[in-house]
Amino acid sequence: MSSKRPIIVSGMRPTGRLHLGHLHGALANWVKLQDDNECFYFSADWHALTTNYHDTSVIKQAEREMFVDFIAAGIDPSRSTLFIQSRVKQHAELNLLLGMITPLGWLERSPTYKEQRENITDRDLALYGFLGYPVLMTADIILYKATRVPVGVDQVPHLELSREIVRKFNFHYGEVFPEPQPLLTAAPKILGTDGRKMSKSYGNTIDLGESAESTQKKIMGMVTDPARKRRQDPGNPDVCGVFYLHKVTSDAETVAWVDQNCRTAGIGCVDCKKKLLERLLPQQEEMRARREALLAKPKDLDDIVQLGNEKARAAAEANMVQVRAAMKLE
Amino acid sequence: MSSKRPIIVSGMRPTGRLHLGHLHGALANWVKLQDDNECFYFSADWHALTTNYHDTSVIKQAEREMFVDFIAAGIDPSRSTLFIQSRVKQHAELNLLLGMITPLGWLERSPTYKEQRENITDRDLALYGFLGYPVLMTADIILYKATRVPVGVDQVPHLELSREIVRKFNFHYGEVFPEPQPLLTAAPKILGTDGRKMSKSYGNTIDLGESAESTQKKIMGMVTDPARKRRQDPGNPDVCGVFYLHKVTSDAETVAWVDQNCRTAGIGCVDCKKKLLERLLPQQEEMRARREALLAKPKDLDDIVQLGNEKARAAAEANMVQVRAAMKLE
Repeated sequence: MSSKRPIIVSGMRPTGRLHLGHLHGALANWVKLQDDNECFYFSADWHALTTNYHDTSVIKQAEREMFVDFIAAGIDPSRSTLFIQSRVKQHAELNLLLGMITPLGWLERSPTYKEQRENITDRDLALYGFLGYPVLMTADIILYKATRVPVGVDQVPHLELSREIVRKFNFHYGEVFPEPQPLLTAAPKILGTDGRKMSKSYGNTIDLGESAESTQKKIMGMVTDPARKRRQDPGNPDVCGVFYLHKVTSDAETVAWVDQNCRTAGIGCVDCKKKLLERLLPQQEEMRARREALLAKPKDLDDIVQLGNEKARAAAEANMVQVRAAMKLE
Repeated sequence: MSSKRPIIVSGMRPTGRLHLGHLHGALANWVKLQDDNECFYFSADWHALTTNYHDTSVIKQAEREMFVDFIAAGIDPSRSTLFIQSRVKQHAELNLLLGMITPLGWLERSPTYKEQRENITDRDLALYGFLGYPVLMTADIILYKATRVPVGVDQVPHLELSREIVRKFNFHYGEVFPEPQPLLTAAPKILGTDGRKMSKSYGNTIDLGESAESTQKKIMGMVTDPARKRRQDPGNPDVCGVFYLHKVTSDAETVAWVDQNCRTAGIGCVDCKKKLLERLLPQQEEMRARREALLAKPKDLDDIVQLGNEKARAAAEANMVQVRAAMKLE
């Protein structure tokens, strides 16, 4: 931990097997960040409670699947710290302390809070913990003195709120925390097999490391430009999920070739999909092999996460010692 | 901890030296409860942040004074567990978990929340932690599976809220916690030297273990029935702070004697006060001696609190293991 490399923290709620949407929306970027940063990647199991407190039975298994997929995607546990939020109690302590200085108005105006309360109607979300989600998120980040946080555009307002909380903390208790800056990830659009956004809830995902057979079947059956009814019709790649996958999978030359030949009906959708599979299948196979290797040695995964928890705890505790001293609590 | 005695938890915010108002409003009862219960008494230093986050410099010293006064008043550290809330991180963890299931409406309707927001106008109290005060209070209590909580009438609505949170927790995750019941303490009225409620903020207190000289001076100068202007006027003990002190200090016979002779002008205020001092001074001397003994050995106090913290942590952790298992987080 003596490195002077920037500290990066990011977490994901444990929802089970990850898919290509997760890979290209977050994980691929996490993998790259390992080269020049000290990275902490965690399972946000306490956050999972904010919307799923009524059914927690799936969390543990979903978490294992997620960690396996992290590693399958290229996260290297010997370089990055993989840990479970609820195993590092300092998150709860800092969350409590930050809550004492966070105005309710800041939380009530959070766009996600308002949006989710409007959109999720099958559960009562007018809950104290749900309102406080950005406080816990802030604790998650600054507990490690992270300076950069890889986020999508939708998370930028939350991070702004985090910086406001940091400024208020530093104002009252002295300069303890750096202000975390967003590291904006270009979030490529990834569509599912049915042409809608790829999402587990739509049942339209292609999971990380799916078998060649299954991946092939899904890609070949994938919805393309709905306006291109016959082979000889020119297509519009800008509305085609297969083309989106090309852009994150194939090389630039292939992407240009697909773009042009789709628009001119030079190739059909079957040709295009086969071309995609040329690169996608080896990628899937690589991830599948990593998954299998890890699943065959469950103890290895346990050890990785346990070691990660310990490393995270040590880093967190070192910073909490400063926090408690700054607040004159110890 | 293998005793089957009922578990009692109560805490106090660290505000420094305690006075006769604290003694008769809470401590005297805490002392009695030690006989038949397993008692946990704590410094609520995290709670102190809910209203005093802007100035935390006084907390540590105030806490030491408070613990000294607990013991001076008769709390026996070999029978009761004295500890500091912030040293038992499980309070923060359970607070976070309970927050996930606590409806905002329950908190917003809390009478104390509404009252304090109206009354305290020199600080911004529209804060997340301040709103969540009853959640943390609930965590404090049920973390030890306390079944009875010594409270004043004003705290009954909070405890009702605690029971609602317990019921919701047990509904979602199984019967983990007993519902804590209030142990209503008759809260005798204790007036300060100026005839107003005894309170540090009024500067009208008689502190625990004040010297004989100082106690005597304060009692002799104490405001009595303002309508009794001359020795020969009959007095009304029902409005007299000295009489209130008689009721919690003197024996029944003396109280009856004062009552009757005040109303008939059989005695004057000076006689009445001298009679009070006959019992009050030895009480003060006893507490003063205990205070001095402890202040002379600061290491002993450190050891008491450290041992208390450890005992509290062990009890709290044993229950948290059950909580995490019930919530399927571990």
